[in-house]
Amino acid sequence: METPRLIALLHGPDQPGLVARVAGWIFERGGNILHADQHRDREAGVFFQRVEWEPAAEKNRPGIAQLAAAEAEFVGFARGQLGMEVRVLASIERPKVAVFVSKADHCFHDLVLRWKAGDFAGELAAVVSNHPDLGDAARGYGLPFHHVPVTAATKPQGEAAQLALLAGLGVQLVVLARYMQVLSADFLAKLGVPVINIHHSFLPAFAGGKPYHQAHARGVKLIGATAHYATQDLDEGPIIHQDVVQVTHRHGVDELIRKGRDLERTVLAQAVRWHLEGRVLVYGNKTVVFD
Amino acid sequence: METPRLIALLHGPDQPGLVARVAGWIFERGGNILHADQHRDREAGVFFQRVEWEPAAEKNRPGIAQLAAAEAEFVGFARGQLGMEVRVLASIERPKVAVFVSKADHCFHDLVLRWKAGDFAGELAAVVSNHPDLGDAARGYGLPFHHVPVTAATKPQGEAAQLALLAGLGVQLVVLARYMQVLSADFLAKLGVPVINIHHSFLPAFAGGKPYHQAHARGVKLIGATAHYATQDLDEGPIIHQDVVQVTHRHGVDELIRKGRDLERTVLAQAVRWHLEGRVLVYGNKTVVFD
Amino acid sequence: METPRLIALLHGPDQPGLVARVAGWIFERGGNILHADQHRDREAGVFFQRVEWEPAAEKNRPGIAQLAAAEAEFVGFARGQLGMEVRVLASIERPKVAVFVSKADHCFHDLVLRWKAGDFAGELAAVVSNHPDLGDAARGYGLPFHHVPVTAATKPQGEAAQLALLAGLGVQLVVLARYMQVLSADFLAKLGVPVINIHHSFLPAFAGGKPYHQAHARGVKLIGATAHYATQDLDEGPIIHQDVVQVTHRHGVDELIRKGRDLERTVLAQAVRWHLEGRVLVYGNKTVVFD
Amino acid sequence: METPRLIALLHGPDQPGLVARVAGWIFERGGNILHADQHRDREAGVFFQRVEWEPAAEKNRPGIAQLAAAEAEFVGFARGQLGMEVRVLASIERPKVAVFVSKADHCFHDLVLRWKAGDFAGELAAVVSNHPDLGDAARGYGLPFHHVPVTAATKPQGEAAQLALLAGLGVQLVVLARYMQVLSADFLAKLGVPVINIHHSFLPAFAGGKPYHQAHARGVKLIGATAHYATQDLDEGPIIHQDVVQVTHRHGVDELIRKGRDLERTVLAQAVRWHLEGRVLVYGNKTVVFD
Repeated sequence: METPRLIALLHGPDQPGLVARVAGWIFERGGNILHADQHRDREAGVFFQRVEWEPAAEKNRPGIAQLAAAEAEFVGFARGQLGMEVRVLASIERPKVAVFVSKADHCFHDLVLRWKAGDFAGELAAVVSNHPDLGDAARGYGLPFHHVPVTAATKPQGEAAQLALLAGLGVQLVVLARYMQVLSADFLAKLGVPVINIHHSFLPAFAGGKPYHQAHARGVKLIGATAHYATQDLDEGPIIHQDVVQVTHRHGVDELIRKGRDLERTVLAQAVRWHLEGRVLVYGNKTVVFD
Repeated sequence: METPRLIALLHGPDQPGLVARVAGWIFERGGNILHADQHRDREAGVFFQRVEWEPAAEKNRPGIAQLAAAEAEFVGFARGQLGMEVRVLASIERPKVAVFVSKADHCFHDLVLRWKAGDFAGELAAVVSNHPDLGDAARGYGLPFHHVPVTAATKPQGEAAQLALLAGLGVQLVVLARYMQVLSADFLAKLGVPVINIHHSFLPAFAGGKPYHQAHARGVKLIGATAHYATQDLDEGPIIHQDVVQVTHRHGVDELIRKGRDLERTVLAQAVRWHLEGRVLVYGNKTVVFD
Repeated sequence: METPRLIALLHGPDQPGLVARVAGWIFERGGNILHADQHRDREAGVFFQRVEWEPAAEKNRPGIAQLAAAEAEFVGFARGQLGMEVRVLASIERPKVAVFVSKADHCFHDLVLRWKAGDFAGELAAVVSNHPDLGDAARGYGLPFHHVPVTAATKPQGEAAQLALLAGLGVQLVVLARYMQVLSADFLAKLGVPVINIHHSFLPAFAGGKPYHQAHARGVKLIGATAHYATQDLDEGPIIHQDVVQVTHRHGVDELIRKGRDLERTVLAQAVRWHLEGRVLVYGNKTVVFD
Repeated sequence: METPRLIALLHGPDQPGLVARVAGWIFERGGNILHADQHRDREAGVFFQRVEWEPAAEKNRPGIAQLAAAEAEFVGFARGQLGMEVRVLASIERPKVAVFVSKADHCFHDLVLRWKAGDFAGELAAVVSNHPDLGDAARGYGLPFHHVPVTAATKPQGEAAQLALLAGLGVQLVVLARYMQVLSADFLAKLGVPVINIHHSFLPAFAGGKPYHQAHARGVKLIGATAHYATQDLDEGPIIHQDVVQVTHRHGVDELIRKGRDLERTVLAQAVRWHLEGRVLVYGNKTVVFD
């Protein structure tokens, strides 16, 4: 069985000796650093680090209480002595994740199958939808499906129901897998946990509906997908991952949509995996991804 | 020695039998079709075709006069009998090309070296610049270099001088190889030949100066380049080719710029090559590229 | 409802006028060519064409008998008058496909979900496996699952049972979706329909077992997947599609395998789609893909 | 002016506390770590690290003597106390590089232009060729060109002349930029500095001459290029970088060769840049690239 690990994501004002002090602190307490990746934004004067280590254990493996204590102690050190912002995960924790869907099912199936293949360091706790369409598929996978209708008129009630559901489950991450409703700023503020969204991207960008039809009409040569954290500014939050494919005039709108679906699946899955492995550090409106 | 070929780019209202009528017309006159590629935009009801053929010749090879006659005859057929817009090139023509540069030299060197390697179906007739910086390099390659200073105050005179120069040389294509001046609508209208431009592309797009610095600050994961025909709307003309590369936080601004330079070189060269081989059909604000 | 179309794949000795004669033949019979794509291998002197057209119909739409007659007439023309090898498909035919699996399920799920999304121009008639493991998943999708055990000792009987099953169903394509048994030359000869296989590809190639472990030990920077038609020489048949992704030392063996799975899914699906749309012309040990 | 930095590449048996001990050692001596990237090969039990730091200086900047002393002290620490193999570079050193060419000039021009653009952390000290063809181009760039004819009969003398030349110049890296001679094992042994080579790569691989013709005949869908350190086994040394592009039947042999040239240029340039920045750690027959 794998030894439990702690993963810390730190960032704050750069200063000499940070790498040595973090490594020294862990080493002095008998911990063994497995990975340490750091980055300096020299223009902004900011230091970023992801460090992953096995803390010391009295017996073979540290228990949960020991891990929690080590976690708290490290947070105190990083904040108090280094003046850094810090987030710590334990590898044996399996954060609960809710997947929001509407009717499109390509990202939904892809995420669920990857979950079953063991790709994600978390637990798929709920599938939430504003439509009943994917209920059978979710239940077929043995997943709890929650139908929460949301219309323009019922949005406040719908969001309140969603918030109550997520809070009750202790969800720590929401994934919008082609969920076709805009989340209100109020919802995001009350939710208090990260939300990952996926959307298509084009060069140039297109406003308005039917973006693939617009892209086809404009003769674009690339279509793309972007996974990002949702913020109040729709489709404008910190970017986690992006990818594109080349297309030609030979590809009709249907083919563009199909290629877009394939991209959305892989880009969203990669972003969710990185997030759950503690590889994504958010800083202002950007991310540092320690892949 | 290669047999001369004609290349026709046609588009117009779709109707049954177009492929057969074009092929039949060529065949009946003893021509041999080497390539024929067609595309239907079914929503718009438009037919596009690129057809390349060896016209019949009395002796081994058709002379220039015969080619010109065959060209004119085909244009008459396509317009008169098929109601199509058409452009015909002869493979033995080597259209004259002017390359406009400022101070950045990466696209300039790349284009020239590809020209020397025989990659382009045209003749590099002039290097034009608003700065003297690349004069020695151009002359070192044995190329005529024309320094035409352009400032805000002297733009009309500068553009008039450029137009006179290009007309005098019989230039049929202008390539902006990181030429850092906006061409006026008046210049484009008077020039009357296509202008290919290259610019960086980001997801999302950034307005204003120092785009690579903005992209770095925003934490973009992709940088790209787009080659397009210049129109009055700067950076908004029909797209010929696009490509991107993935970047991470590990790449500083310098590295983004370097990767951008590499992309710009290959994307611009590809667009110029396709244009000179008669592979790019412009239709409204888009292109159909028969690659 | 879409008008029925015929799709012909031709190849044979190059000669002047082939494009015109094919197009003329179709046009004279009232057909309307939708797509025609041709290719000349000038060194080998071979002409390749894919042509897709709507044949004329007495009423609105041709019936099945009319289509079959048009198909036979075209085959006669192509063979008899042009001396070409030819294969013709009708768009309303839905050829039956069998998917062979073992225990790995990533390509299996991916193919099935794409089938449900309408991506493939065929009917998924049977899932065949030498292991019972994926039976529940197949039945959960509403698909007939056939468990045909095959061991070294029982291979002749197993293959005989598979052949009987496929013949009984009228299967016209077999897809090996990570089927971990080598098909005998005898099986392929008796089967008489194409078999598409997917396998990993590395630069350089690795012989023997555990290829991802070998690739990791060798420090490869790219991993790839290749879809090809199965022939007697295992993994050596005509290549339909290939793709690669970049990897680094940061990626452990598990991550290489996961990336390999993602590649295998998309490369295999693309090859199956192209095959079923009549876009793949096999010629000697290579393919011409009219994408 | 940039502060001088030291860059160390370490590898050896893994043990707890290595990150802390290296960082602590640097910090205690007043150094400031700018980048530290490490990797564990857990199966092999090997630890790899690249660490880049500014050593302390009495005045503003350390002089060369101070840097050399710090370098020697670190090597002693890494070998003596950590039991690691280590190589240290100083950022102010500009190692001398020799570029070997034959007649093909695409990699040659590309490397030289990148050198002029400041892309490489080294000095281009000599262009060496077995043919006189690129002499004018090299001299046009202001580079010393050495024509050393090598035939089957004169290989020993030719290699001896090359060795004398390189030793006299103090060359620390040889780049084979499409140099079409096999270097003997004896030459490599006596040379004693790394040699980077570039060659085309195909899936599947092709033995023998005219590989692009073979690849075309086989209908490959990808062509690639690999940069690696030259060893006695030709084209089999540790891989530094690889890349591929997709091709189709539409691309003739000429186009495959042209795409191959483009790939070779960028892949070789990337490998040379990484090497000169101390980012490539060779271990057995593989590399760890700290990009």
